[in-house]
Amino acid sequence: MTDPVQEMKRAVGRAAADRVASGMVVGLGTGSTAVHAIARLGERLRSGQLDGIAGVATSFQSSVLAREHGIPLVALDQTDRIDIAIDGADEVAPNLCLIKGGGGAHTREKIVDALAETFVVVVDESKLVDRLGTVFPVPIEVVPMAVAAVMHAVESLGGRPELRMAEKKAGPVVTDQGNLLIDARFDAIDQPAQLERTLNNIPGVLDNGLFVDLADLVLVGAVADGVPSVREYRGESAT
Amino acid sequence: MTDPVQEMKRAVGRAAADRVASGMVVGLGTGSTAVHAIARLGERLRSGQLDGIAGVATSFQSSVLAREHGIPLVALDQTDRIDIAIDGADEVAPNLCLIKGGGGAHTREKIVDALAETFVVVVDESKLVDRLGTVFPVPIEVVPMAVAAVMHAVESLGGRPELRMAEKKAGPVVTDQGNLLIDARFDAIDQPAQLERTLNNIPGVLDNGLFVDLADLVLVGAVADGVPSVREYRGESAT
Repeated sequence: MTDPVQEMKRAVGRAAADRVASGMVVGLGTGSTAVHAIARLGERLRSGQLDGIAGVATSFQSSVLAREHGIPLVALDQTDRIDIAIDGADEVAPNLCLIKGGGGAHTREKIVDALAETFVVVVDESKLVDRLGTVFPVPIEVVPMAVAAVMHAVESLGGRPELRMAEKKAGPVVTDQGNLLIDARFDAIDQPAQLERTLNNIPGVLDNGLFVDLADLVLVGAVADGVPSVREYRGESAT
Repeated sequence: MTDPVQEMKRAVGRAAADRVASGMVVGLGTGSTAVHAIARLGERLRSGQLDGIAGVATSFQSSVLAREHGIPLVALDQTDRIDIAIDGADEVAPNLCLIKGGGGAHTREKIVDALAETFVVVVDESKLVDRLGTVFPVPIEVVPMAVAAVMHAVESLGGRPELRMAEKKAGPVVTDQGNLLIDARFDAIDQPAQLERTLNNIPGVLDNGLFVDLADLVLVGAVADGVPSVREYRGESAT
């Protein structure tokens, strides 16, 4: 693995996994950086460095990877706590509000990440933004029959909605829950908490990719002169 | 049919169906009173009194009934409007806020009822309450993996949650969308709009049975001396 971006994602994912201690219940995130965290957890289990952990999957992807890497899984209703969740993000604002859902898994991710005692976000530098919504649209998971109605509702909120289309299958992306995804572009999101609630209250919406007041710590990867580095980002104390 | 309660439900359902005009797109509700509205629409179509209507189903129940009674169905994304929706309710407050979802169909019902130009509610007198939540719990449709987490969240809001168990199948009721139902009992609901949004913002919640500012007209059935009657109820202008 010599691609510096891949090296950097690997470094960030591993740094997060190294914060896990024996006996912890770990939320296993989805996406290209979370993958490395899961791999590293397996490595630490096999080497005996870690013992007695259990993973809670946020997607088909993370449950398959957990099995591959020998991480025992526990169903969410079989555990009374999640000690730490490790997950990626598409945008991170200075107040640590996030946009997630590029991988289409934000509904399950929010269920798990919101329950975690500590939610560690793993990203590369390009995900840090001054204001949410400037680069990424907000993914919205929608019951199939309500797609047109939700698109109208998003437009009336000033957003530009687009149904997410699949590759490797005809038609739209279908989520792990059997629903569809609308990517809603807003020019900039000044009130993420309010927008999150407003979107979730549209009939037919399951959840959206705004994660407000959930992240505790962001690990940010960078590459300088081909050398990957990881730093902690605790945001700025804005609202 | 000589049971006076059944006669009354039939009278209310028929009265609502008689408000439908030719060419209209009609939201077809779920439940024991809506059933009679669907039957009456079929009768009016067959007699030539109505022509060119199309139904939008809110549940498996209503789509099966529509087929039985010869009402052409249209998918929600195939129509740009719903002229009228006819649907039942479990509680009706003086401001016409509702609790729905005793039939487990409130998510689809809210999608359809919210889009209707006119939403007509059909109930019997026993459904009129002074304050929401005094008789009925609020049904909440939840992604299966999130049931325990949502129950905890409901408790922290002061509610008493219960997973709805099925009859005629082992285990819990499964909705038409493949999810589970939590019935959340609140002693009285003073701020239904706020509670609706708060519940919908809990990760894993699809929608809840609070219907705020959606009903336009309530048709109320009563029985006096064995004779059914129907009256219009437009509520009181409280908040």
